[in-house]
Amino acid sequence: MSPADLIVRNGTVITMDDRGTRIADGYVAVNGGRITALGPVAELADRRAAREIDARGGLILPGLINTHTHAAMSLFRGLADDLPLMTWLNDHIFPAEAKLDGAMVGLGTRLACAEMILAGTTCFCDMYLFESAVAEAAGACGMRAVVGEVLYDFDSPNYGPLERGFAYVAEMLARWKDDPLIRVAVEPHSPYLCAPDLLQRAARLAADHDAPLVIHVSETRAEVETIQGRYNATPVGHLAALGVLGPNVVACHAVVLTEDDIDLLRRHDVKVAHNPESNMKLASGVAPVPDLLRAGICVGLGTDGCASNNDLDLFSEMDTAAKLHKVHRLDPTVMDAATVLRMATCDAARTLGLERHIGSLEPGKAADLIVIDTAKPHLTPMYDPVSHLVYAVNGGDVHHSVINGQVVMENRTLQTIDLQAVLEQVAAFKQNA
Amino acid sequence: MSPADLIVRNGTVITMDDRGTRIADGYVAVNGGRITALGPVAELADRRAAREIDARGGLILPGLINTHTHAAMSLFRGLADDLPLMTWLNDHIFPAEAKLDGAMVGLGTRLACAEMILAGTTCFCDMYLFESAVAEAAGACGMRAVVGEVLYDFDSPNYGPLERGFAYVAEMLARWKDDPLIRVAVEPHSPYLCAPDLLQRAARLAADHDAPLVIHVSETRAEVETIQGRYNATPVGHLAALGVLGPNVVACHAVVLTEDDIDLLRRHDVKVAHNPESNMKLASGVAPVPDLLRAGICVGLGTDGCASNNDLDLFSEMDTAAKLHKVHRLDPTVMDAATVLRMATCDAARTLGLERHIGSLEPGKAADLIVIDTAKPHLTPMYDPVSHLVYAVNGGDVHHSVINGQVVMENRTLQTIDLQAVLEQVAAFKQNA
Ligand SMILES: [Zn+2]
Ligand SMILES: [Zn+2]
Repeated sequence: MSPADLIVRNGTVITMDDRGTRIADGYVAVNGGRITALGPVAELADRRAAREIDARGGLILPGLINTHTHAAMSLFRGLADDLPLMTWLNDHIFPAEAKLDGAMVGLGTRLACAEMILAGTTCFCDMYLFESAVAEAAGACGMRAVVGEVLYDFDSPNYGPLERGFAYVAEMLARWKDDPLIRVAVEPHSPYLCAPDLLQRAARLAADHDAPLVIHVSETRAEVETIQGRYNATPVGHLAALGVLGPNVVACHAVVLTEDDIDLLRRHDVKVAHNPESNMKLASGVAPVPDLLRAGICVGLGTDGCASNNDLDLFSEMDTAAKLHKVHRLDPTVMDAATVLRMATCDAARTLGLERHIGSLEPGKAADLIVIDTAKPHLTPMYDPVSHLVYAVNGGDVHHSVINGQVVMENRTLQTIDLQAVLEQVAAFKQNA
Repeated sequence: MSPADLIVRNGTVITMDDRGTRIADGYVAVNGGRITALGPVAELADRRAAREIDARGGLILPGLINTHTHAAMSLFRGLADDLPLMTWLNDHIFPAEAKLDGAMVGLGTRLACAEMILAGTTCFCDMYLFESAVAEAAGACGMRAVVGEVLYDFDSPNYGPLERGFAYVAEMLARWKDDPLIRVAVEPHSPYLCAPDLLQRAARLAADHDAPLVIHVSETRAEVETIQGRYNATPVGHLAALGVLGPNVVACHAVVLTEDDIDLLRRHDVKVAHNPESNMKLASGVAPVPDLLRAGICVGLGTDGCASNNDLDLFSEMDTAAKLHKVHRLDPTVMDAATVLRMATCDAARTLGLERHIGSLEPGKAADLIVIDTAKPHLTPMYDPVSHLVYAVNGGDVHHSVINGQVVMENRTLQTIDLQAVLEQVAAFKQNA
């Protein structure tokens, strides 16, 4: 056996590998940030590592992956709710965002990373302004992230005119090229805020750097009507006609889709980031996820930003995803627990093009894992761990978290973030807002 | 000022009284199980009580009230999911229930009480078998409960033939008549499992004892079709024709309703227990709650049993309730946070006929209250406490809980339940199941 600098032991290991391997009373051994071995603890004999984590009979599984959020919007959590979309955006969110700078975005990102790590998320895909600050903040927290500066037709409070936006993204792609935690994506906001030229240039940039192309698509009926009026096509049809769709594209939301749209997504192997709680809260609609899955399209789960959720808890998001589609289809068999858990782990990794690195516990993959304490009334009895993970666990049940081999939370205490300082700085931000 | 044996201080008090009073940096004083005073802590001067709880800047609010559950079904949490309703019931739930006895129901109730107290619930309305055991267990946990033995046309594993069922309920009504925590309801299962005679007799018994009449009504389309076929009426219409409807009736679910049904519920001042997560998971449908509220019908929230949820967390239920109806109506303004919070507090108390005793923090009412710790990333910043309570708080954020003046949880440690013993006994139950 190769040496291990960390061993997580004494839990049921839910690997989320292709064979759905589960190991009762198992361990995961880590060295240099990667998983080196896993199996029943009996195999370990008296082998020890410099650092050990005792799962105490709980569950050991891959860290959850949030395929779509705007992390720094944690600063606007609960700022305004229950309003018509345009009132919410124009009277509350946009004015608040207009005052942001890189330091505030960095602070909001640290707050979001603290929340995500405490709730079992070990990787997130972000879209926002001042995204260099997001990358710096996430990296400093030991958090894995796919980051991308939002691009659109008008001037940005960060980079100014679009031309400088592309230069900014190119610089970020170079700066984080070989980072173990941070990956840079190209992120045009949406077909309705991005001209065809912008979209095609973004797609070329992404292709040149083998980077994900992350974009909001078909979130609302109003968006579909706008694009129909402007281009005589659905948003998906419009993107297809522009030659923008491909396996590296992450279509966020994909709520309002035609059968032709689904066929286009399938043929181009586009990935979908599904954000049920945000779609519910903003009354956007219910994405046709069972149809997407039936077509073989890869779907990952996301929370969207805190202003429309209002948290970043993927356990709650899994629960909601499993239930929403059942009632929407009047069919209790759709979106079973195992399918939904994949959407927050291995399929989420695939959504972000990271399936060779994360999303399952397998030797050679990065050591991104979490430990759930199941000795709690709401997780007792346990007939099926996967049922509990989707329908009963919440973020607060995650007791330990490891990202790239680094213990970022132990016994619910954050190891890489000065939580008290972050909470105080956010309170001060709110006072001045 | 009257003496206090308990003072909860240093939090924002959300009273849920009719005026929506909020007290920044407030206190609640308790004596002999009742609230004696509340106000800004400045009023307290150097006044102290034998026992004090420091809310440390968090939120102090009425304990949440679960208007419909089957507490002991905690034993079957996650036993089977994602199945067609009849397969789930006939192949999994009914066979498991057939083996139950009073001791097991008592154990399941203690497990459920532990979970509920840990998640901020201080009162629940139960329907199940061996309900005397539920009353004993809840009372021993210091939990407030409305309990009712389920009545139906066939023999019961508990009381045997229906005649003995009515005697059993009458005995319970007498036994718990003046209990400070336990109230007994009359609970015929549903129009489809109860003949007209049973329903009318149950209604008379409830009226004679000024007790709630709790019944499942119009949960599924199949039920409505059955009742239509049998009685040529909707379930609500059928109950109205039998003279069973009245202000003491708690109609659980009320998912599939006609406009006439809603009018009947309104005219008879029937209360509705709304269980969105269970209705979603079982794919029953979406109850027309915005229409019920517009008609002025009182709606309380419930979790239903653990087998169809799979937890008893009313914070998660509030979040889901607020979001589900927004997306169902494609209107982000329905079911605003304040409305939903009332459905788990003051309106839930009204649903159960307990509004003079619980549901809001007011002098003279029972001291049923909880304290939320908001010094957490997912509750930071806080622009509006009510938004957080519905959209961001989860059960694990409740740090202290008081029922009828008794501290049942302090710093997340249960004071009235031997949690370790309960978890071990449930594990043993599962081994033998
Ligand atoms: Zn978004
Ligand atoms: Zn029920």
